[in-house]
Amino acid sequence: MTNIQDIARLAGVSTATVSRVINKRGYVSALTKQKVLEIIKKLDYVPNANAISLKKGKTRQIGIITTLFSPIIIQFVRTFSLIAEKNRFNITLFITNGDPAKEILALEMLRGKQLDGIACLIRSNTWEVIESYTRYGPIVTWQRLQNEHLPSVFMDQFHAYQVGLEHLYAKGYRKILSVYPMSQGLNTKERIRAYSEFAQRYHLITDIFPHFEDKMLVQDGEELATWWLSQKYRPDAIFCANDEVAAGLMTSLKRLGFSIPGDVGILGFDNTEVAHLLDLTTINYPIDQQAENAFFILQNKLNNTSHLLNTLTYKLVERKST
Amino acid sequence: MTNIQDIARLAGVSTATVSRVINKRGYVSALTKQKVLEIIKKLDYVPNANAISLKKGKTRQIGIITTLFSPIIIQFVRTFSLIAEKNRFNITLFITNGDPAKEILALEMLRGKQLDGIACLIRSNTWEVIESYTRYGPIVTWQRLQNEHLPSVFMDQFHAYQVGLEHLYAKGYRKILSVYPMSQGLNTKERIRAYSEFAQRYHLITDIFPHFEDKMLVQDGEELATWWLSQKYRPDAIFCANDEVAAGLMTSLKRLGFSIPGDVGILGFDNTEVAHLLDLTTINYPIDQQAENAFFILQNKLNNTSHLLNTLTYKLVERKST
Repeated sequence: MTNIQDIARLAGVSTATVSRVINKRGYVSALTKQKVLEIIKKLDYVPNANAISLKKGKTRQIGIITTLFSPIIIQFVRTFSLIAEKNRFNITLFITNGDPAKEILALEMLRGKQLDGIACLIRSNTWEVIESYTRYGPIVTWQRLQNEHLPSVFMDQFHAYQVGLEHLYAKGYRKILSVYPMSQGLNTKERIRAYSEFAQRYHLITDIFPHFEDKMLVQDGEELATWWLSQKYRPDAIFCANDEVAAGLMTSLKRLGFSIPGDVGILGFDNTEVAHLLDLTTINYPIDQQAENAFFILQNKLNNTSHLLNTLTYKLVERKST
Repeated sequence: MTNIQDIARLAGVSTATVSRVINKRGYVSALTKQKVLEIIKKLDYVPNANAISLKKGKTRQIGIITTLFSPIIIQFVRTFSLIAEKNRFNITLFITNGDPAKEILALEMLRGKQLDGIACLIRSNTWEVIESYTRYGPIVTWQRLQNEHLPSVFMDQFHAYQVGLEHLYAKGYRKILSVYPMSQGLNTKERIRAYSEFAQRYHLITDIFPHFEDKMLVQDGEELATWWLSQKYRPDAIFCANDEVAAGLMTSLKRLGFSIPGDVGILGFDNTEVAHLLDLTTINYPIDQQAENAFFILQNKLNNTSHLLNTLTYKLVERKST
């Protein structure tokens, strides 16, 4: 590979002069400059970017960590990538499948200056481990967290869940089954809290149905349909962990000849494309603005900018499944 | 930042000795080794990864270039990422939105040794421009191409389209509208060729319907429903560019009270999750094996391995929309 010494030798100048031409800094005579540039062109020399980032200490790479690739996370990654690229950052994507060792690889890249910052969507290690890496570069998370070193773009799902439950109550449903996402997630805790407060307020019995957690896929919804069918005392509405579960449940029940919402009301969460296609009532989750906020937080820390964050609000999207 | 000189000074040894300890190469006495490791730990020293990759000339980063993020491309990225990570490569994702300048940024990273290789799913520049970068590292593409420097994992869509058309014919459809994806794509050309050959074989009239191209979104399918409704002489079957278009078309027509396949048969392409949910007949596209092949091609070039490629075949998945 051509290096700066080769160019200096061929141009008959010092490496310092070549460096001044390449970095467009300091005085170089027009004639010398032209000679150096011609040799650079002739040798097809390209400054090694690793050498440049070694000097500057910046790679303009932001890592995104997630355990999985769900429609809502894909939407986050898409929006985050677009705004990052607009600001001349590239994205390195880490899908850990929940393996803490893989997550450590990404965190070590922050430590090793291969990443300028990290957006940790769904973590695999403890927050203590992740926090210990914040001294090497900014980390922002999507998960619910209150930690001064680990800013989060999470939204309070307690309120969103309340909105959904109140909608179901207003529609006349009284035997509401609530199906939750990740059992480890703090959002799940908030949803459970909202449900229990709701049940108490309206004097609803809550312990008739089993407790469903970790239901996040279309297939989970399909299994839920089989469960529903086998029950003698069936819920009259099911508040699903997300739109995929709701979609699997709804299409399965329709295939079996049941009518939605006639036989059972179904409520999704996230307002992804499938909710639109299936006329599913759902909660709109402002994922695009959230992804923007995650980028702004990193950018503010990296470039000392002070970009204002979007205000995030949930909204019920009423369609035909409730 | 701590560097190797600091450690050498504090340990009272040469930087060469420190380097031997860090790289676990060459003889260092047990006592010296312990002293050096203690200082490394105390100073929280981490070898700068850019300095390492500068030396090794490898970053273990593979770039993925795409113009957009469709369900089928997301599935490709997901599978490619998983197999890359299993082999200790990380993924840098470039979503260009069709901007050639953004694509050049990614290609320049290959030239600047920030990427070891590139999987170019959907390109924005001419093949000549992309090919000129193959001297800096391997590039594999997903698009239809025959070029010895640019290996491709494309599949011949001519045959797949024939399979779909023959299915529609066998089901009794004679007024078949064919809706195409990217007008620039060579796959579209192959689909058009298959359709015209098919029409000729069965003496079908082909010029009754307008030519629809660049239809790839749910919204495009919805607009197609509006078009279908406004026609006096309607197609009895529509072969859609992909499952999203088919999904938008199908759900729109159902909302308007039409029955599928009673009023019109609908055939998708790709066999993504939405086809399963909507009971859509479609063509299964072996995207996972294709993504694996793309990785194997890069790996074979980068590591001189000789991983055999998967054999790729299309399959009709008959459901309830035809």
